[in-house]
Amino acid sequence: MSREGVTPQSEDFSAWYNEVVVQAELVDRGPVRGTMVIRPYGYRMWELLQADLDGRIKEAGHGNACFPMFIPESYFKREAEHVEGFSPELAVVTVAGGKELEEPLVVRPTSETVIGEYMAKWIDSHRDLPLLLNQWANVVRWELRPRMFLRTTEFLWQEGHTAHADEDDAMRETMWALDAYAGVARELAAMPVIEGEKTPSERFAGAVRTYSIEGMMRDGRALQAGTSHYLGTNFAKVFDIQYQDAQGELVHAHTTSWGMSTRMIGGVIMTHGDDKGLVLPPRIATYQAVIVPIGRDETAERTVAAARELADRLKKAGVRVHVDERTQLRPGFKYNDWEMRGVPIRLEIGPRDLDSGVVTLARRLGDQGKEQIPLDRVPEVLPGILEDFQAFLYTRAEQYRDEHTAEIDDWDSFRTQVAGGWARVLHCGRTECEDEIKADTAATPRVVPLEAPEETGSCFRCGQPSAYGKRVIFGRSY
Amino acid sequence: MSREGVTPQSEDFSAWYNEVVVQAELVDRGPVRGTMVIRPYGYRMWELLQADLDGRIKEAGHGNACFPMFIPESYFKREAEHVEGFSPELAVVTVAGGKELEEPLVVRPTSETVIGEYMAKWIDSHRDLPLLLNQWANVVRWELRPRMFLRTTEFLWQEGHTAHADEDDAMRETMWALDAYAGVARELAAMPVIEGEKTPSERFAGAVRTYSIEGMMRDGRALQAGTSHYLGTNFAKVFDIQYQDAQGELVHAHTTSWGMSTRMIGGVIMTHGDDKGLVLPPRIATYQAVIVPIGRDETAERTVAAARELADRLKKAGVRVHVDERTQLRPGFKYNDWEMRGVPIRLEIGPRDLDSGVVTLARRLGDQGKEQIPLDRVPEVLPGILEDFQAFLYTRAEQYRDEHTAEIDDWDSFRTQVAGGWARVLHCGRTECEDEIKADTAATPRVVPLEAPEETGSCFRCGQPSAYGKRVIFGRSY
Ligand SMILES: [Zn+2]
Ligand SMILES: [Zn+2]
Repeated sequence: MSREGVTPQSEDFSAWYNEVVVQAELVDRGPVRGTMVIRPYGYRMWELLQADLDGRIKEAGHGNACFPMFIPESYFKREAEHVEGFSPELAVVTVAGGKELEEPLVVRPTSETVIGEYMAKWIDSHRDLPLLLNQWANVVRWELRPRMFLRTTEFLWQEGHTAHADEDDAMRETMWALDAYAGVARELAAMPVIEGEKTPSERFAGAVRTYSIEGMMRDGRALQAGTSHYLGTNFAKVFDIQYQDAQGELVHAHTTSWGMSTRMIGGVIMTHGDDKGLVLPPRIATYQAVIVPIGRDETAERTVAAARELADRLKKAGVRVHVDERTQLRPGFKYNDWEMRGVPIRLEIGPRDLDSGVVTLARRLGDQGKEQIPLDRVPEVLPGILEDFQAFLYTRAEQYRDEHTAEIDDWDSFRTQVAGGWARVLHCGRTECEDEIKADTAATPRVVPLEAPEETGSCFRCGQPSAYGKRVIFGRSY
Repeated sequence: MSREGVTPQSEDFSAWYNEVVVQAELVDRGPVRGTMVIRPYGYRMWELLQADLDGRIKEAGHGNACFPMFIPESYFKREAEHVEGFSPELAVVTVAGGKELEEPLVVRPTSETVIGEYMAKWIDSHRDLPLLLNQWANVVRWELRPRMFLRTTEFLWQEGHTAHADEDDAMRETMWALDAYAGVARELAAMPVIEGEKTPSERFAGAVRTYSIEGMMRDGRALQAGTSHYLGTNFAKVFDIQYQDAQGELVHAHTTSWGMSTRMIGGVIMTHGDDKGLVLPPRIATYQAVIVPIGRDETAERTVAAARELADRLKKAGVRVHVDERTQLRPGFKYNDWEMRGVPIRLEIGPRDLDSGVVTLARRLGDQGKEQIPLDRVPEVLPGILEDFQAFLYTRAEQYRDEHTAEIDDWDSFRTQVAGGWARVLHCGRTECEDEIKADTAATPRVVPLEAPEETGSCFRCGQPSAYGKRVIFGRSY
């Protein structure tokens, strides 16, 4: 209760983040290193993201399923690159039911292997394709540098797994998932993400091509907020995912996988937050508006009653609203509290407001100051104000991103640029060259944007001919 | 594809169950003993149950959260009865990130311990109470006699965990959860469950009182389909869940926990299924209706087009409908297939139906035969037909239960009765007497019904004075 506010974002971004996620009651540190407890104020945001993304997934014909989280170690080891990529991060069950297990069980870090096994079982004929599966699940990747939402030992995600007759159909699916993620990021999280392909060094372990959406955080770093992989026939070959085609030939299927996780919540926090704390986009805010009744004793009775009544009307209008009835606290404390917790709109109801039949409305951001709105009209006007606020956040984030992105053609400017933003560069595409850049600046190729003008030339770093036929985005990342 | 139907329920209930869950594509056996893969046809049922129950949970003011699934072994050991009850079933992670862990991690079999730790942290004052939490999660209990949905090593559930100022408030919550479960069972699953209290021998490990809902399966056995526990101050004492009351005194909170799981799907299957296979209640059926277009080649073009058009109109009317477009299969095969898979209503569209502007409707159960309905009117009448079917299933199950339940006062009749149903008896309440009954008949006290007339007398088995002030239900159970 005796909060002294958070470290300002502008002073220490990392401290700000670590403090705000806990103080805003989004999460708490878990009992095991790197784990987190997602509290109701944070979990509701995940549910809202989930509902939207799940709708898109179902609409496109995918069926939700649930595969076991314990994967026999032998399954996991079948795809060589895959096991190499994930081995250092695995948690392993060796004892169960009071006995040492004959075969250790990997707690899934991702489910390509176990789902591959079942795809092989369920697919016989070309008529069984495409097979479009998705699951909402918890996964475990042992983290040495944990950070709430961004990198936790256990996290929640959705993982799509699909099998197709050929590369064309699998690539259509891969790009569908990427677009769905971009849609969720833009429309719900108000994150102006860039869609693009990862360079080979940043590919998923076992994938032929990996695509991602990347958002810019307010410290200029990039956050990968969703990935979609075309797996070719890599998993199909090791798990025998084959089908009989129309001519009766046995052919390997082409598979995809794609995931979006609770990491997205971290993206929302770092895209919109400011010195005072969180700033939440209305479409995924747990509370879109908070009502603070003002006054004590008899006055409080009147204002609390009015606040509850208004809340009922707002709920009917589809607004997620909360009445702050903590009578033991001063209004000023509550204002700061809800600002820190990022609620888009605050409605104050004081005795004088009531006498004049108005409420005082304050936005979490934007210089419109406070305004008074007739009490009766609040349910009618608030949805529009929330949509405007949502759009305002998107535009603000887009401006921020564009101001912190530059076309760079020389090494000195690159070093300056990636210290606080993104550089759009021509690059040779060689992993060794990427490694040198990373060693010097901590910047890595984030993505080869899908939408970018054609351009070729020399690598800004090593002078060799550029790859990709367009500029690549480099930046430091989470 | 070459299915030969399932073993009739009336021949071998257990074989019927094991075959039907797999053939209907609800589940597949997991790669690890006792685990299951829930396939989309089964998972959708879980989602429908989940949506309904989640609505009730939120409406009553609970916040959803997500606690880590790895619990330090030391937490788990704090409550003596709790650890004793769960120890034989635990799966333990001993290796993570390539290293032996200093402290092994228990994969949660339930979360009282880890949530208790955080309740202690989050609760300071009486103003923080009640604290109403819920989570949707996977849990692990190592199973020696696994059975799909009923007892699997990993299962999905919801677990509510709440803290209250006193016993009264905690008991109100305990009974609220029980009623919510009864509501879901009756209204969605069409299961006429009995609500009641468990006898001490059947209590949750660490609870003061355990309540459950019990449904009768079509082999006369009972299925416990949801439990609600009043934990007293047992967990509050070991986890230091204390609050300052209005007088400034430090007092232990009273806690509750309650859960409903994927086991419920098993209950649906065994409550309504018959020799042909599943019979699904419309409110949780993945497909409420299936449309089978009849004919080949040009005829198929006409009927498939009409089926798709009808499906669109039904979807708009809120009906979950599927068009069976497997042109390579005969209609008779499809009819059997969808009957085995339990779809409540089948709509056949043949060329002659089309010429007359009708569809042929067949119910999965009930002796109404087939009927013809004008094509135009299907979206208007089908929702009512589905509701009638839902009500019919409930009534049928209630009749079945009542016909297989009897008041019993002597041992011989008891043995006969519990071979195929439930016995309502006066019992002494002694665990030793329960144990003897169980050793002879495999029947155990399922529940002391909340609603039952007052009655006392002598124990039907040992002659000692009866306990509970009313009759207890005994039966064999899952
Ligand atoms: Zn280069
Ligand atoms: Zn007795």
